[in-house]
Amino acid sequence: MHKLDVAILGATGAVGQRFIQLLEGHPWFQVREVVGSSRSAGRRYADAAHWVLNGNPPADVATLVVKALDEPLGSPLVFSALPKEAAQMRELALAAAGHVVCSNASANRMLPDVPLLLPEVNAGHTGLIGWQRRQRGWTTGALIANSNCTVMPVVMALKPLVKYGIRRLHLVSEQAISGAGYPGVSSMDIIDNVIPWVPGDEQKMETESRKMLGAFTGAGIAELDMLVSATCTRVPVVDAHLVNISVELEQQPAFADIIDDWETCQALPPVPDLPSAPRFPLQYLTQIDRPQPRRDREAGAGMTTSIGRLRECPILGYKFASLSHNTIRGAAGCSILNAELLAAQGYIEPFRLADEALAV
Amino acid sequence: MHKLDVAILGATGAVGQRFIQLLEGHPWFQVREVVGSSRSAGRRYADAAHWVLNGNPPADVATLVVKALDEPLGSPLVFSALPKEAAQMRELALAAAGHVVCSNASANRMLPDVPLLLPEVNAGHTGLIGWQRRQRGWTTGALIANSNCTVMPVVMALKPLVKYGIRRLHLVSEQAISGAGYPGVSSMDIIDNVIPWVPGDEQKMETESRKMLGAFTGAGIAELDMLVSATCTRVPVVDAHLVNISVELEQQPAFADIIDDWETCQALPPVPDLPSAPRFPLQYLTQIDRPQPRRDREAGAGMTTSIGRLRECPILGYKFASLSHNTIRGAAGCSILNAELLAAQGYIEPFRLADEALAV
Amino acid sequence: MHKLDVAILGATGAVGQRFIQLLEGHPWFQVREVVGSSRSAGRRYADAAHWVLNGNPPADVATLVVKALDEPLGSPLVFSALPKEAAQMRELALAAAGHVVCSNASANRMLPDVPLLLPEVNAGHTGLIGWQRRQRGWTTGALIANSNCTVMPVVMALKPLVKYGIRRLHLVSEQAISGAGYPGVSSMDIIDNVIPWVPGDEQKMETESRKMLGAFTGAGIAELDMLVSATCTRVPVVDAHLVNISVELEQQPAFADIIDDWETCQALPPVPDLPSAPRFPLQYLTQIDRPQPRRDREAGAGMTTSIGRLRECPILGYKFASLSHNTIRGAAGCSILNAELLAAQGYIEPFRLADEALAV
Amino acid sequence: MHKLDVAILGATGAVGQRFIQLLEGHPWFQVREVVGSSRSAGRRYADAAHWVLNGNPPADVATLVVKALDEPLGSPLVFSALPKEAAQMRELALAAAGHVVCSNASANRMLPDVPLLLPEVNAGHTGLIGWQRRQRGWTTGALIANSNCTVMPVVMALKPLVKYGIRRLHLVSEQAISGAGYPGVSSMDIIDNVIPWVPGDEQKMETESRKMLGAFTGAGIAELDMLVSATCTRVPVVDAHLVNISVELEQQPAFADIIDDWETCQALPPVPDLPSAPRFPLQYLTQIDRPQPRRDREAGAGMTTSIGRLRECPILGYKFASLSHNTIRGAAGCSILNAELLAAQGYIEPFRLADEALAV
Repeated sequence: MHKLDVAILGATGAVGQRFIQLLEGHPWFQVREVVGSSRSAGRRYADAAHWVLNGNPPADVATLVVKALDEPLGSPLVFSALPKEAAQMRELALAAAGHVVCSNASANRMLPDVPLLLPEVNAGHTGLIGWQRRQRGWTTGALIANSNCTVMPVVMALKPLVKYGIRRLHLVSEQAISGAGYPGVSSMDIIDNVIPWVPGDEQKMETESRKMLGAFTGAGIAELDMLVSATCTRVPVVDAHLVNISVELEQQPAFADIIDDWETCQALPPVPDLPSAPRFPLQYLTQIDRPQPRRDREAGAGMTTSIGRLRECPILGYKFASLSHNTIRGAAGCSILNAELLAAQGYIEPFRLADEALAV
Repeated sequence: MHKLDVAILGATGAVGQRFIQLLEGHPWFQVREVVGSSRSAGRRYADAAHWVLNGNPPADVATLVVKALDEPLGSPLVFSALPKEAAQMRELALAAAGHVVCSNASANRMLPDVPLLLPEVNAGHTGLIGWQRRQRGWTTGALIANSNCTVMPVVMALKPLVKYGIRRLHLVSEQAISGAGYPGVSSMDIIDNVIPWVPGDEQKMETESRKMLGAFTGAGIAELDMLVSATCTRVPVVDAHLVNISVELEQQPAFADIIDDWETCQALPPVPDLPSAPRFPLQYLTQIDRPQPRRDREAGAGMTTSIGRLRECPILGYKFASLSHNTIRGAAGCSILNAELLAAQGYIEPFRLADEALAV
Repeated sequence: MHKLDVAILGATGAVGQRFIQLLEGHPWFQVREVVGSSRSAGRRYADAAHWVLNGNPPADVATLVVKALDEPLGSPLVFSALPKEAAQMRELALAAAGHVVCSNASANRMLPDVPLLLPEVNAGHTGLIGWQRRQRGWTTGALIANSNCTVMPVVMALKPLVKYGIRRLHLVSEQAISGAGYPGVSSMDIIDNVIPWVPGDEQKMETESRKMLGAFTGAGIAELDMLVSATCTRVPVVDAHLVNISVELEQQPAFADIIDDWETCQALPPVPDLPSAPRFPLQYLTQIDRPQPRRDREAGAGMTTSIGRLRECPILGYKFASLSHNTIRGAAGCSILNAELLAAQGYIEPFRLADEALAV
Repeated sequence: MHKLDVAILGATGAVGQRFIQLLEGHPWFQVREVVGSSRSAGRRYADAAHWVLNGNPPADVATLVVKALDEPLGSPLVFSALPKEAAQMRELALAAAGHVVCSNASANRMLPDVPLLLPEVNAGHTGLIGWQRRQRGWTTGALIANSNCTVMPVVMALKPLVKYGIRRLHLVSEQAISGAGYPGVSSMDIIDNVIPWVPGDEQKMETESRKMLGAFTGAGIAELDMLVSATCTRVPVVDAHLVNISVELEQQPAFADIIDDWETCQALPPVPDLPSAPRFPLQYLTQIDRPQPRRDREAGAGMTTSIGRLRECPILGYKFASLSHNTIRGAAGCSILNAELLAAQGYIEPFRLADEALAV
């Protein structure tokens, strides 16, 4: 099988590196283009990137020459790990030029025609792509986003509870340093410390969760009507975001029923058979002191969300903790799973360089 | 001035060490007796204790010989840093023998005649001592407790808000490792990790906060009627507990009024003039990313509670973060301040070894 | 192919858990017996063990019932993760009873007839087994040890330099907390701290390295004659020991030659084809700030030693840093590789319960 | 007593903040001028500086307006916490303009006429100031440097051993993150990790230690003739550098004699009476696992060096560990002590703005 060519925007940064690491040996996708800042452009990837993940860059990417952000690309599929400001116009331009852009940036997430896709939660939101293409006059291009990394463990755990009616949601996160990229959080700020504030994340928790759990209406997403209060904090943990969740439901299911909902949770076809889909999207841990970032983040190769401590909340009814690997399930891994779903559904065409691309 | 002799129960443990450290050079109290386990008894303190705080034990305590737990004591004032099980009967026996016992143990906190004293919050609860002595037939003896270390930053911050009517309280803590004593938390459990559960603390948050904010009725404490939901987690921080607080009030004060309440908060006389009382019991930090454990725990020599991030909670109305040093304000420092208040109010008599003590 | 039955001594401890984790899905070995303390004996493994590694115990081991230390075993191959005191007599007794015991304990390492085996370094030391069996009158039994976890990165890096004549060796280690087992190092001792002493390790560095790099003489090991000075420190790192090495050689090879020696280093057959052998036993990292524990410990699934920073030592001539994963290459992984070598060489017979075993 | 006006160069950085913190309430010096980058100039100090130390900036400095680097200064005494590049010319220009500049920067340390001053070690090097002034035609101005922060614990511990003849010195450091300033070391690089390389420090260890332990000759410093090999590593510790030291001496003093040398070590008058001089410049800790960064860095308010683990080095004869607080004794605190010595010796004249200053 011929693999689909892939480009990575923001390839030298921390999330870009995670894309490259996760795509090593991918059965469908092959990294052919790496795009970086003007400082990196023209250099070998291995020289331009200060590799911050374990080990070293994969050999086939190490030798690629980094392209500048404004160069035209030849890959039909583009993953974006750009910073917000750089992402906003460039992602739209590339989609307009015919590329399918799967973005991890926050810039365009809340545009009404951009799906905030998480295959186990809202695979039906891909329907928005047709509307997006019609609206914008795109043919092969598309722009799909994944949510903020801290929203992931929340919506993954809440999806099976939507049927009980979610009224109010109180969230307090304990987030890993890798969520801030590289160099990101200064060690002077976080060793032996907690930072009780993460720029921008509280608002994203409140808005993105409503969109992700909403329904595709044929011409947009009807957001889930729930009240959300979020507090985001940073802790000295390398990877994985833990969220302490209290939730008020319209119905009053037994704890055992909720646990059963989580344990039997399965995405609809074709999601479970996608290369990056974990065997179990959720696992409920019965030990009283779990989930824990270091011990549970690698579950399902970083794609399984771990839940624990379901018990009564005297105020909202139910409380529990949920944890996801923030740079895999919460970022690059989710974007790749999104792209796999789009590929399986025929949204990514073997690329013919479009006329508009030449004009970029 | 002649200093009051003091005994420390559980003197070799982490909290016992903090008592000894904080009492070094104390203007009113002098450590004369250190009490330890049978393994420690009979040895010089410096040899028996594995000192886990900074530096080394004070020279005058280093040479004291550790007494066994069942030996009679000669000090009128006794600080207890005993584990719960050991504390329960021994503290009562010592109070019965005429000692004023200021305890950091949880064993007897919720006894109806034991004040859960925090001078800036409920100095009036010392009134309970008269009732305690009458009830139990004690003359010079008394048993006073301080609360769980995680409850402290909560009640310190809430005290000025009681006047607005506290209805519901949602708490998520991020607690330091020193709260678990020594050796306490294994490094294998907490480096690069969060433990989303602290044994026993969630219940204490819910019960002790109601008692502390309650009112002395002449014959007991009328607990504050509020609904509390607590989640307690452990993070890789050495000292200081941070609590993320959402609170629902009956009235709707402006944020500026609440901040003003905190900044002008002062305990009633004689508390502000006690040797261990901080100049300001509370400080409100205006930086958006504060309070932080490492940067704010030493405020007021560890006795000032730091508050920050007051903002709207879409669910309960108000939310903010509060932080106290857990082994100073939250444990030994509070016990010492309690004892200072009792001494100032004449509850601690120059000790004459009572007949019942001889029978211990 | 029928797998060889395996027993794990000390199965509930941290190293025992690592044995179980690494043996999950092993092509030759199957864990059939888990042996623990009297407190654990009789309980299901999943209940008896507080699992401290990532995830949960493998399902097939989780349901095994833990055996007591003095129960007879039915497995021909026994891995020992016992504490030193428990190991000393029990390992010898099991070997006498006909089992091949691959031990991670330090108790019997320096016995003259016990190989301190590290296949890439001294595979020829298996010759000692014949001498051991003759000396002790054992037929199928044998006792093989692996070295201290901090010695591993040293001897792995030095092996290719033996040909240049090693005269003097100066070592300063920075060791991970997992080297002390569980609960092991208190978090109160190591967060935001370094402990400049690791009990017993400095002596082991000095003695075990000489034995491992020595030569099998037909009747014992002739230790390598070199002078070793070791300082061992503990740092707040979860896994992997880093050793700063200065070495004086008789010859003066160019740096490039030494790097070439490391990069081309290969064990003799059959070692490279053993299931747990890494593709490269050594890797030389050219980045100036490597090797690093977190980024390099997983190399070769934890079995590759990473070396970096080769440069001139003004005193001893050469200096560099070497790093190995301490609980994989430095403990359980090495024991398993040792057992694979013994199995490949025919030292482990399909087990027939020997008469002497019945008498245990 | 009228205090001497003081200016701080690089006042908003991490070391600049430490200067300001340590000078709060200083009996001789008063911070009157704070100098920062062009980005900070013109703003209130409290607004311009992201305060990374505990608590908040002192009130009297918080309201100072930050001056630009090229503005003339009115303070006779200037502390420099500038980065190397900025320091080189500016420090010399200010000294030429008549200021006494006590610098923490590395730029001018090895100039032959600049004392590398550490009052307990080489107070006699102030003699170099006269030579400096004559050479350069300066009258009231002078430039004095303190050494690299990692060199401090080495030379402090070695000073009493110079009399035994120091031949060779092998150093391996474990350095705190604060040594790299702010933001300095990325948390992604150091949590659960060690970085086995600190840019530039190994060379400074080798050169600066020889200069500091050398002798003033009347026209320069005769460096101590010893061979030094240094390895510098970074560990996840907030403050304090620990150095593992092996040393070869010409004589063979008993361990007890060396310990006695350390314990009785006292600086010559007037050093012991300077405001920032610790009561004991050195302390020898008898516990086998000390010194430790977190537990010993505050000794003597951060100005006492802690030594431990003196024992035989099989290669060089003696080995031990030495620890100093890197931003107090190793940086700002040392500069302040240097300035106190200069003030006590009359090197700092009540400032009359010199003609050459007007030309700056």
